[in-house]
Amino acid sequence: MNFNLPFIPGRPEKPRSSGLTMVMDKGLSLRQAEDLCEVASEYTDFVKLGFGTGLLTPNLKEKISLYKAAGIRPYFGGTLFEAFVARNMFDDYRKFIAESGVETAEVSDGVLPIEHGKKCQYITDLARDFEVFSEVGTKLRGKEISNAEWVSWMKSELEAGAWKVIAEARESGNMGIYQEDGSANSQLIMDIKKEINTEHILWEAPLKSQQVWFIKLLGANVNLGNISETEVIPLETLRRGLRGDTLLSFLP
Amino acid sequence: MNFNLPFIPGRPEKPRSSGLTMVMDKGLSLRQAEDLCEVASEYTDFVKLGFGTGLLTPNLKEKISLYKAAGIRPYFGGTLFEAFVARNMFDDYRKFIAESGVETAEVSDGVLPIEHGKKCQYITDLARDFEVFSEVGTKLRGKEISNAEWVSWMKSELEAGAWKVIAEARESGNMGIYQEDGSANSQLIMDIKKEINTEHILWEAPLKSQQVWFIKLLGANVNLGNISETEVIPLETLRRGLRGDTLLSFLP
Amino acid sequence: MNFNLPFIPGRPEKPRSSGLTMVMDKGLSLRQAEDLCEVASEYTDFVKLGFGTGLLTPNLKEKISLYKAAGIRPYFGGTLFEAFVARNMFDDYRKFIAESGVETAEVSDGVLPIEHGKKCQYITDLARDFEVFSEVGTKLRGKEISNAEWVSWMKSELEAGAWKVIAEARESGNMGIYQEDGSANSQLIMDIKKEINTEHILWEAPLKSQQVWFIKLLGANVNLGNISETEVIPLETLRRGLRGDTLLSFLP
Repeated sequence: MNFNLPFIPGRPEKPRSSGLTMVMDKGLSLRQAEDLCEVASEYTDFVKLGFGTGLLTPNLKEKISLYKAAGIRPYFGGTLFEAFVARNMFDDYRKFIAESGVETAEVSDGVLPIEHGKKCQYITDLARDFEVFSEVGTKLRGKEISNAEWVSWMKSELEAGAWKVIAEARESGNMGIYQEDGSANSQLIMDIKKEINTEHILWEAPLKSQQVWFIKLLGANVNLGNISETEVIPLETLRRGLRGDTLLSFLP
Repeated sequence: MNFNLPFIPGRPEKPRSSGLTMVMDKGLSLRQAEDLCEVASEYTDFVKLGFGTGLLTPNLKEKISLYKAAGIRPYFGGTLFEAFVARNMFDDYRKFIAESGVETAEVSDGVLPIEHGKKCQYITDLARDFEVFSEVGTKLRGKEISNAEWVSWMKSELEAGAWKVIAEARESGNMGIYQEDGSANSQLIMDIKKEINTEHILWEAPLKSQQVWFIKLLGANVNLGNISETEVIPLETLRRGLRGDTLLSFLP
Repeated sequence: MNFNLPFIPGRPEKPRSSGLTMVMDKGLSLRQAEDLCEVASEYTDFVKLGFGTGLLTPNLKEKISLYKAAGIRPYFGGTLFEAFVARNMFDDYRKFIAESGVETAEVSDGVLPIEHGKKCQYITDLARDFEVFSEVGTKLRGKEISNAEWVSWMKSELEAGAWKVIAEARESGNMGIYQEDGSANSQLIMDIKKEINTEHILWEAPLKSQQVWFIKLLGANVNLGNISETEVIPLETLRRGLRGDTLLSFLP
């Protein structure tokens, strides 16, 4: 901090297990990745190479090295996992990500239907070599699961070896834990909160209103994801009570 | 591709005539233009210097050279053409763009009323020295043209010498081929598709939902434009079936 | 201008007192700030380090120097002022911003309730050492003030020493002088315009529709703020009649 104001929420030191910020990289250049590291490496825990972008950008290995050197953990988005599994190429997936140099893996079934026991096997399998995020929630309207299933699947995926479970929202923030207008699906989130220690959950929250909602519910050190690279510093001002929406939230 | 997955739609080699991606540059710095080239030169066919930005940015000639060196074809947006024509300065326009080093020109009447025969003359005239995009569709609410006029004007502009016709959507994606809420004007698009080979059409599609809609209708190699520079890689993941919305679209 | 078209509205030379563009910096890297200066230093008068970002980015002093060297005046957003005042640390605030090298200060009560006489004292106090922007309008729904209060407070804050008053809109452009859907609160703006010389007012206008609305009402050299760094050149095309929305507005 450039000035030590009192009554600013503390943040755990990196590498941390709560207060995580996961940023979505949709195809940054090396220089743009450096820019993110310059201003926000202290506030960024993970960078997700979104959907299948990791297969298409020509700078993959350099970018992964660059993030790691800045103390940020890169990984491939769950859609890439699904793209390999849809082709019965799970072993190739494991090999591809291991060779790329990442230490984190995501398991999801946002679009591809995967039997839940099989999904848990993938988690257990990858957890031997990687820190695993597993994602619960569909990207497809009409395929939504019940609140009880959300809770039960989160629990069984954590038991299967996931380090954190991610609550799905899509990049646009209008699915899963949110309504179509982007507002929180409060009953679902309360049902989850009642049953699972929220330190084990990373909530996708691409919109500012969603970030504010979760900070007010769970505090400055809630785990939030799908943050655009231009919104990491603004999110940090929300966590610290340095933006209008939370300016008075942490004062005595 | 960083890994050769099967069942990924093929893309023609550059310079190509279908599968085009046209990116909107609203005033990028030279370094930002380099960043675009680093990650996306393989996926970017044209860069449009949007509206009149080409008159205002101090880096014009260097930026045009930079794009050309990366195998990307830059050109000036149709609004600049209209700004010159509105002042009866068409000859100055032709001279200005020739001296700037571009090899592509756009003819449009999105705001300025131009009698259609006169518009076709501009196309024929410019087609002697440039590859011509001509744009059909107004930017002005209340001035919309009928479906039959869309089809007939597209045909006559191609006959007049346009290399491709652009279907107008505005930067915001809520005019022309789209409804005010951004959804596709399906009947219009079907009427066009029935009468004109869609390889000759470039559809403005600034929103992801619009890109998905066209890829599902016309395949991975549909020509799409008004793509933001941050969305070229995400669009390419849609074309390749590497994003949720199209993940299952190209599988056997 | 890369070509001297006739009938393009003139702009005062920098440093200017009207025709101001104030850009919102939400945490740019040094290189991104340089990129802004490369393309838009001629068109950018002020850069606001938004909300409390000035406390969090590690590059504060270098960035302030960089903007000043490019002829752009940087300052800290009003929320940071409120964060200090909420802690009874106004003297520390004045010292902090003086030491940072800025020459402009903002006084606001967007979230923190400040008695209006006290707010005017802060203005007078800071105006001894800084050029002062004071902001009128709340960020909080349900706390909106009457049109008469808008006018009276703007007048008294200018009398207290503010160089310009800022009309609040939030970063999202849906409060204060705008309706929840982002459209202008016309009656309020007309009431203000009737009573106050609009050269003394800087209107926050983050959305293109808002910028167009004000340019059509008050001309090319209206003072506009909360412009994103990627929208400075597009805004300048609107001011010059080089974009569809204003293409015909300045022609004879």
